[in-house]
Amino acid sequence: MAGETDGIKFEQRHGKTRVRVGRVWKRSDGSHSFVEWSVSVSLLSDCLPAYFNGDNSHIVATDTMKNTVYVKAKECSEQISMEDFAIGLGKDFTTFYQQVTASIIKIVEKPWERMIIDGQPHKHGFKLGSEKHTTEVIVKKSGALKVTSGIEGLALLKTTKSGFEGFIRDKYTILPETRERMLATEVTASWMFPDVSSIQLKMPNIHFLPVNLSNKENVIVQFQDDVYLPTDEPHGTIEASLSRIRSKM
Amino acid sequence: MAGETDGIKFEQRHGKTRVRVGRVWKRSDGSHSFVEWSVSVSLLSDCLPAYFNGDNSHIVATDTMKNTVYVKAKECSEQISMEDFAIGLGKDFTTFYQQVTASIIKIVEKPWERMIIDGQPHKHGFKLGSEKHTTEVIVKKSGALKVTSGIEGLALLKTTKSGFEGFIRDKYTILPETRERMLATEVTASWMFPDVSSIQLKMPNIHFLPVNLSNKENVIVQFQDDVYLPTDEPHGTIEASLSRIRSKM
Amino acid sequence: MAGETDGIKFEQRHGKTRVRVGRVWKRSDGSHSFVEWSVSVSLLSDCLPAYFNGDNSHIVATDTMKNTVYVKAKECSEQISMEDFAIGLGKDFTTFYQQVTASIIKIVEKPWERMIIDGQPHKHGFKLGSEKHTTEVIVKKSGALKVTSGIEGLALLKTTKSGFEGFIRDKYTILPETRERMLATEVTASWMFPDVSSIQLKMPNIHFLPVNLSNKENVIVQFQDDVYLPTDEPHGTIEASLSRIRSKM
Amino acid sequence: MAGETDGIKFEQRHGKTRVRVGRVWKRSDGSHSFVEWSVSVSLLSDCLPAYFNGDNSHIVATDTMKNTVYVKAKECSEQISMEDFAIGLGKDFTTFYQQVTASIIKIVEKPWERMIIDGQPHKHGFKLGSEKHTTEVIVKKSGALKVTSGIEGLALLKTTKSGFEGFIRDKYTILPETRERMLATEVTASWMFPDVSSIQLKMPNIHFLPVNLSNKENVIVQFQDDVYLPTDEPHGTIEASLSRIRSKM
Repeated sequence: MAGETDGIKFEQRHGKTRVRVGRVWKRSDGSHSFVEWSVSVSLLSDCLPAYFNGDNSHIVATDTMKNTVYVKAKECSEQISMEDFAIGLGKDFTTFYQQVTASIIKIVEKPWERMIIDGQPHKHGFKLGSEKHTTEVIVKKSGALKVTSGIEGLALLKTTKSGFEGFIRDKYTILPETRERMLATEVTASWMFPDVSSIQLKMPNIHFLPVNLSNKENVIVQFQDDVYLPTDEPHGTIEASLSRIRSKM
Repeated sequence: MAGETDGIKFEQRHGKTRVRVGRVWKRSDGSHSFVEWSVSVSLLSDCLPAYFNGDNSHIVATDTMKNTVYVKAKECSEQISMEDFAIGLGKDFTTFYQQVTASIIKIVEKPWERMIIDGQPHKHGFKLGSEKHTTEVIVKKSGALKVTSGIEGLALLKTTKSGFEGFIRDKYTILPETRERMLATEVTASWMFPDVSSIQLKMPNIHFLPVNLSNKENVIVQFQDDVYLPTDEPHGTIEASLSRIRSKM
Repeated sequence: MAGETDGIKFEQRHGKTRVRVGRVWKRSDGSHSFVEWSVSVSLLSDCLPAYFNGDNSHIVATDTMKNTVYVKAKECSEQISMEDFAIGLGKDFTTFYQQVTASIIKIVEKPWERMIIDGQPHKHGFKLGSEKHTTEVIVKKSGALKVTSGIEGLALLKTTKSGFEGFIRDKYTILPETRERMLATEVTASWMFPDVSSIQLKMPNIHFLPVNLSNKENVIVQFQDDVYLPTDEPHGTIEASLSRIRSKM
Repeated sequence: MAGETDGIKFEQRHGKTRVRVGRVWKRSDGSHSFVEWSVSVSLLSDCLPAYFNGDNSHIVATDTMKNTVYVKAKECSEQISMEDFAIGLGKDFTTFYQQVTASIIKIVEKPWERMIIDGQPHKHGFKLGSEKHTTEVIVKKSGALKVTSGIEGLALLKTTKSGFEGFIRDKYTILPETRERMLATEVTASWMFPDVSSIQLKMPNIHFLPVNLSNKENVIVQFQDDVYLPTDEPHGTIEASLSRIRSKM
C-alpha cells in the first residue's frame, strides 16, 4: 500500500511465507487423496500508522494469516485445485478485512505421486516425483482476479538432433559451430488465465561440454559425441513470453 | 525484444548467467586486492528470425558474452567498483552489436575480507565473510542507465527491545500480545542511483518461538525470555519501498 | 596413508571430488543410452615427503585423476554399470601407480529416465526423475574389493496404517499415543556385495503434525486425520544395519 | 544396539535430529549473551522387541528426546559451552533410561557475533558471521566420554605464495607446473579431547583456474596472475589426521 508525503512515496506489503499444509481426503472406497502445499500470503493495506506511530490497530498479524490458511484447508471437504484454494483464500482476506485492498497468494505443490504396486494404484501410498506445480493469484478488493499457473524444475535432455550455427563471429567468439550437440534444460513455464492470455517460458541452456583432452605429447581423449562434461555454471539463458494483444487490458 | 503478429506479442531475451570471475590487482607495495564476482548478462535484441527460420545471423552466442566478461575483467588495470564494471560491460554490448537494444548486467560479489593477522591487514590473505553485495545495471542503446545496488544475506538479531501489541484480534487470532520478544531478520536491501531515487527493503520476521512445554501432569518448560525455538518456516514478510516523486521520470 | 614418528601417527589421503561425466552410447537401431555420473576419487599413498620436504615426486596430481575418469569413460565402448566402472577405475590407480596402496571411488548417478512419448520409449529423449543411485568401491593393491551400492533421496509417504503406542511415558513425555498417523520418510539404503553381506538403512521419521488451533474463545481447527503441518526439522532418526556374521572377515 | 540371531547381526539406533534451540542469558549489567544450537540426539538401546513384536515398552519417544533438550537448556542458569551442554544431555539419557547403553550428541552452533556499534560491543544486538563451531559427544553407560570439537565452513584464500611442481608426469598428465597460483580452501577441522589426542583436517583445494582465451585468429585473454575462473567442481581433496599413539586405547 502506498502513501505520499513531501515528495516521497512509500509502499509496503506484509504477509507470511512458507506456510506448509498437507491435506488428506478420504473416499468411501477407502482410497485417499493427498496434497502438500507451501503457501505464501501477502496483503496490501494502509499500514502507515504502524510504521510512523507504532499504531497496529489496522494490522493483520501474520500469525492470523497462517491460521487462516489452515482454516481454509480444513473447510475443503472435497478435493480442490491449488488455483481455487488460492482464490478462496485471497478473497477471504479482501472481504473480511476492510483495510486490505489486495491479496497475493502463491502456492507451490510438492510432486507427491500415487504409488503403483503390482500395476495397481495404491490406495494411500505416495512417492515424491520431480517437477513442481505452482500458482499465483492476485485478488483485488473489487473481486478482480489475476491467476498465473506454472511448472518449475522439469529437467529435460536429448542426446542428439540439436545444433547451433550461423551465429555472429567477432573478435571475442571462440565457440565452434555444431550441427550435433547435447541439449539440456530445466523448464520453468507459467501461463495466465482465463483462456490463456499469456505464456512465459524460461529454458536455460544447460551445457554438456564435449570432452577433449591432450597434452604436448598426446591426444588423451578425443570427443566423438560420446563423453561430455555436464556443468551447472555458467549456463545460457533464454526467456520468452507470448501474449494476446487486447484492445484494452 | 518484442515482435507482433496476428494479435500475438512475442518478447524474448537471452544471455549467460553465473559467469564467475576472480580478479587480482597487485600494488607496488606488494599488497594485493581481490574480488570474486558472479556475473549475469542478458541482451535484448530482435531474435525472431532465429526462432522462426533457424537464422542465427543476428544472434550473439552466449559463449561470446561469457568471453567478453573475461576480456573486460582483464582490461581493468586498476581496481574498479562492481557498478562501474557492470556499466562498462553493458555499454560494450549495446555499442558493439547494432541489433542489441539494451543489456542487463547483474553482479553478486562474494564477501572476501582481508585477513587481520596480529592486528595488521595481511597483504594477500582473505577470509570469506557473510553478507553479499549486489548490483543490477540496465543500459539502453541511447546510453540511458538504471543502476540498482544492494546487499543480501545480512542476518541480524536482537534479544530484547521489541514488541507487538494492539493488532487486530478476530476469530482466527491466536497470537498473544507481547512487549518483549526476540527480533531476527535477514536484510535484503537495494537502492537506485543517481542521488538515491528509491530504496527497497525486505526484512522478513524470522520467528524465535518462546518454548513452553507441558503435559497433563506438569509444566515441563516455562518460558521466561530465555529458551527459544528458532524457525525458518513459516516466517513473516515485510517489504517496503521509498521513492522520490519526480515531475517526469 | 600412515606414517609414525615420535609417538604421533599421521594419516592422509588425497583425491578429486565431483568429477562430472556424461556418457552416451549409440546403438545401431538409432536409440541412445545415456548416464550422468558425479565421480569422486581418493587415493591412499605415502605422501610424507610432500608434506615435510615439499617433495612432490610421488604425488599423483588430482588433475591427472580427473583426466583418468574421462579416459576410462571414453574406453567404455559398451554401456557399463556404475559398479564395474568404479572397479575398473580404482584398479587403474592401484595398478599403474606403484606407491598407491588403495583407491576409493564413489559415484552418484543422476536419475535420467528415458521419456515415454505416446506410450513408446523415446530414442534419445530423457527426463530427470527423483531418487539417486550410488556406489562406493574400495580397491586394495592386492586386488581385494569392497563394493557398496545404494539409493538416496527416495521420499515415501502413506496417509494411514501407521501408529505409535506403548512407548515410555516419563516426566518429559508429551507426545500422545496414536493408532493412526501420517508416515513419511526419505530412504537412504546401501548394501554390500558380493552375495549381499550387509544392508544399511536410514529411514528418518519426517513429521506431519496434526493441525489443532484454538484461542481462548474458540476451537479454530480441530484435527480429524485431515489437515497436517509438514515439517523438515526436527525429525526422528532411525538407522539400522543387518550383517552376515562370518568366521573371519 | 546389536542383536544376533541365525548368523545375522542386527544393529540400530534412533534419535531426533535438527532440534533447534536458542538460549539467552541476561547479566545484571543489562548485557545479554545468546547462542543458537542445532542439536542431534541418537540413543543406543535394545529395540528388538519394537521391530519384531511391535512392543514399544522400551522405546524412548524421539519427541521426549526433543523435550529433554529444551529442559536442559532451561536448566542452564549460567552460560555453558556446547561441549558441557552435550555431555550433560548425553549423561541424562544414559543415566535416566536403564536400557540406553550409549548416547551420541551432536551440536552445530550458528555463528552469531555480538555487534560492534561505534567501537563498543552492543548489549543485545548480534550479527551472523560465517564459519560454524561443532561438537560431538559420545557418552557410554559407564560414564566414559569421547568429545570431538571442530569448525566447518571457514573459507580462506591467498592470492600468491603457493605453487605445485615436481609431481608425477605420465600419459594422462596435462596440468602444467606452477610456482605461483591462487590457493583457496574451506577448512573443516576437528580435534579430540582430553589433552588433544587427535586432529582431523579436511582442506579441499578449491580451484581458481587461470583464464586464457583464444580463437584461431587471436589471443583474447592472456593470463598474467590476474584473471581467474573460480570453480566449485571438481575440486581437489586433501584429508589428514594426526593422533597420539598410546600403549592402550
